[in-house]
Amino acid sequence: MTQTIHDLQTPALLVDVARFEHNLAAMAAVLPGRRLRPHVKATKSTALARRQAELGHVAFTCATLAEIEGMASAGLGEDLLLANEVLDASRLGRVDARVTVAVDSEETIAAAARGGVAEVLIDVNVGLPRCGCAPEAAGALADRARRAGLEVRGVMGYEGHVMPMQDRGERREATRSSMEKLLAAHERVGGEVVSAGGTGTFDLNTWASEIQAGSYCLLDREYAKLGLPFQEALTVLATVISVSPGWSVADAGLKALAMDHGNPSIDGATVWFCSDEHVTFAAQSRPRVGDRVRVRPAHVDPTVARHGALHLVEGERVVDVWPVDLRGW
Amino acid sequence: MTQTIHDLQTPALLVDVARFEHNLAAMAAVLPGRRLRPHVKATKSTALARRQAELGHVAFTCATLAEIEGMASAGLGEDLLLANEVLDASRLGRVDARVTVAVDSEETIAAAARGGVAEVLIDVNVGLPRCGCAPEAAGALADRARRAGLEVRGVMGYEGHVMPMQDRGERREATRSSMEKLLAAHERVGGEVVSAGGTGTFDLNTWASEIQAGSYCLLDREYAKLGLPFQEALTVLATVISVSPGWSVADAGLKALAMDHGNPSIDGATVWFCSDEHVTFAAQSRPRVGDRVRVRPAHVDPTVARHGALHLVEGERVVDVWPVDLRGW
Repeated sequence: MTQTIHDLQTPALLVDVARFEHNLAAMAAVLPGRRLRPHVKATKSTALARRQAELGHVAFTCATLAEIEGMASAGLGEDLLLANEVLDASRLGRVDARVTVAVDSEETIAAAARGGVAEVLIDVNVGLPRCGCAPEAAGALADRARRAGLEVRGVMGYEGHVMPMQDRGERREATRSSMEKLLAAHERVGGEVVSAGGTGTFDLNTWASEIQAGSYCLLDREYAKLGLPFQEALTVLATVISVSPGWSVADAGLKALAMDHGNPSIDGATVWFCSDEHVTFAAQSRPRVGDRVRVRPAHVDPTVARHGALHLVEGERVVDVWPVDLRGW
Repeated sequence: MTQTIHDLQTPALLVDVARFEHNLAAMAAVLPGRRLRPHVKATKSTALARRQAELGHVAFTCATLAEIEGMASAGLGEDLLLANEVLDASRLGRVDARVTVAVDSEETIAAAARGGVAEVLIDVNVGLPRCGCAPEAAGALADRARRAGLEVRGVMGYEGHVMPMQDRGERREATRSSMEKLLAAHERVGGEVVSAGGTGTFDLNTWASEIQAGSYCLLDREYAKLGLPFQEALTVLATVISVSPGWSVADAGLKALAMDHGNPSIDGATVWFCSDEHVTFAAQSRPRVGDRVRVRPAHVDPTVARHGALHLVEGERVVDVWPVDLRGW
C-alpha cells in the first residue's frame, strides 16, 4: 500500500523530492565533485549524504564527533573533515575513515596528536568571532602541528558573518576580504586545501579550493531571502488538533521546530506563537480539526536535529524515509 | 573511580542535586501527593519521575504519546493524563496504564472512543489562545463524550497566559479570572477532576483540584524572575574550545540549547551569540582552552529534549545519570 502524508504520525519532517533534487543539481553544476565538501550538520542523515556522494561529492564536512562516527560507519569515510575544535580527539582516532580535524591552538594540536588523528587543517579567523587563529599565527601553528607528527593539509576559515548579507555585491566583497586573510594564512601554512564557504557564498567564494555548504539541500527561510538558485524543500507536517473562533492549533511546537531565527510560517496563515507542542495560528480559510498543515521552519539545521526521520514526498505520497542518524554528540 | 564533570563528553546536561531536591521538597510542602500532577514534558525522564512518585506524586501529566508510552513502560502508569488533543488515540488505547486524554471537540471525542481510551477530561479555554473549548460549550461536549461511552473525569484548563506575569498580585487575579471560567465549565461537566496550573501559579491556583507543574524541578531563567521558592538546577556543561583576544568559544550551541526565550547566559560572562555547535562569549576573566563552563539555558523544557541524559552532580562529582527517555513523539 502506498503511504501518504495522512498516514504519518505528526509532527513529521517532509522533504519535497523535486525541490531537493533541484537543489542538488543546481549545486553540482557550479561546484562539481570535490569542489563541494557537503556539510552534514545541516541534514544529519547518512542516506542523504549517500545521495550527495552519488553525485560525486565524496568528501564531507562534519561538526561533531557523532557525525564523524556515523559517516564512517555508513561507509562514507573517504575524506571526513571535522570543521571544529576538540580537546578530546580519541574518538576520532578510533574511526575507520580518513579524518582531518581543525586546530587553532597549541591545546587542540596536542589533542589531535594525543587522540591519534593523522591530519589537520589550521583553522583561521577570517572575520566571524568564533574559532580560528589570527592569520599571522597560522604558520607557527602549522610548524607546531608538524613537529607533533601531524600532516597539515592546509587551512580552513569560515566567513559565516557574510552569510546573512542580503546584497550579493556586499557578500562578494566581504568574502573577498575574508579570503584574502585565509590565503595569507595559507601562504604561511602550505598544503593543498583551502576550505571555506557556505550556502550563502557558494558561487561567490572563488578563492577556496572547496566549499563547505550544507543548507543548500533543504534551504530555509533566511537563505531563501538571498535569491540563491535553491528552493525551500523542508517542512514540518502537523495536524490541526483544535479550532477556535479566530485561531487554530496544530501539533508542531518549539520542540519540533528551531526557534533561534524566530517563528515558523504557514502558507495562508499568520503564526501567533509556538508552545512546547503547539503552534497557534490564524488561517485565511478556517481549517478543520484533523487537517494537515505544512509548517515552514525559520532555521532548517536545528529543526532537522529534533527529529528521527526525513520523509521524502512527491506531493502527498511518501516515497522514502531516511533516518536522521547523525544526531547527538 | 568517581566520575567528575571533567570526565563527561560535552555538551552535557548537569542537574545540581541539592537544588533539585530543594525544589521537590518546596513543591511537595505546598502540593502534597495527588495535589500535584507533575508534568513530565519539562523533564522527559522516567528516572526523575520516579523520584517524584516516591514523594507521593503518583499521577502524572504528559504532552505527547511517547511520554505516555514511556511512563507506562516504566511502571509509572497509575494515572496518566495526556493534557493535549490527539486525532489518533490508538497508541493510547494500547498502553498498559490508566490513561485519560483531553478532548475539546467532537473530533477529538470520536478519536478517543475510536482509539480505545476509557477516560477523558473536557479541555476548556481559560484565556490562553490555544486548545480548549469555550466554557459554555463544555457541558454539551461532556454529554457527547458520555454518549460515546467515555468516562468524563472532569475538566482541565491551562492558564498559560498568566505564567509570565511578573507581579504576583496580577498573577493571582488573572488566575482567579481563569479559574472562574473553568469552574463554570466544571459545573456543567461534573466529575471529580479540575486540572490546571503550572509552576508560575502553583500556590496561587487554589481552585484546581490538581496542579500540572513540571518546570519547578529544574526551573529556568524566565521562571527564576518570578520570585518562586525554586532554584535553577539545570546547566549545560561545555568545554572552552577556542580563546581569542576579546572572546572565547565553548562547545554548546543552539542544537544543545533552547533559543526560543533568547540567548543562554554564563556567570561572569556576556554571551554574544550561539551557532549550531558554539556559544561565543566574553568572560570577565579570560578562560583557558580546555576549561569547563556551565551554560544556563533561557528555557529548560526544550533544552532537556535535545539531550540523551541528565547528569546529577554534587559540585563537580557526578553521582548519577538519568536517561532522557521520553523524547520524540
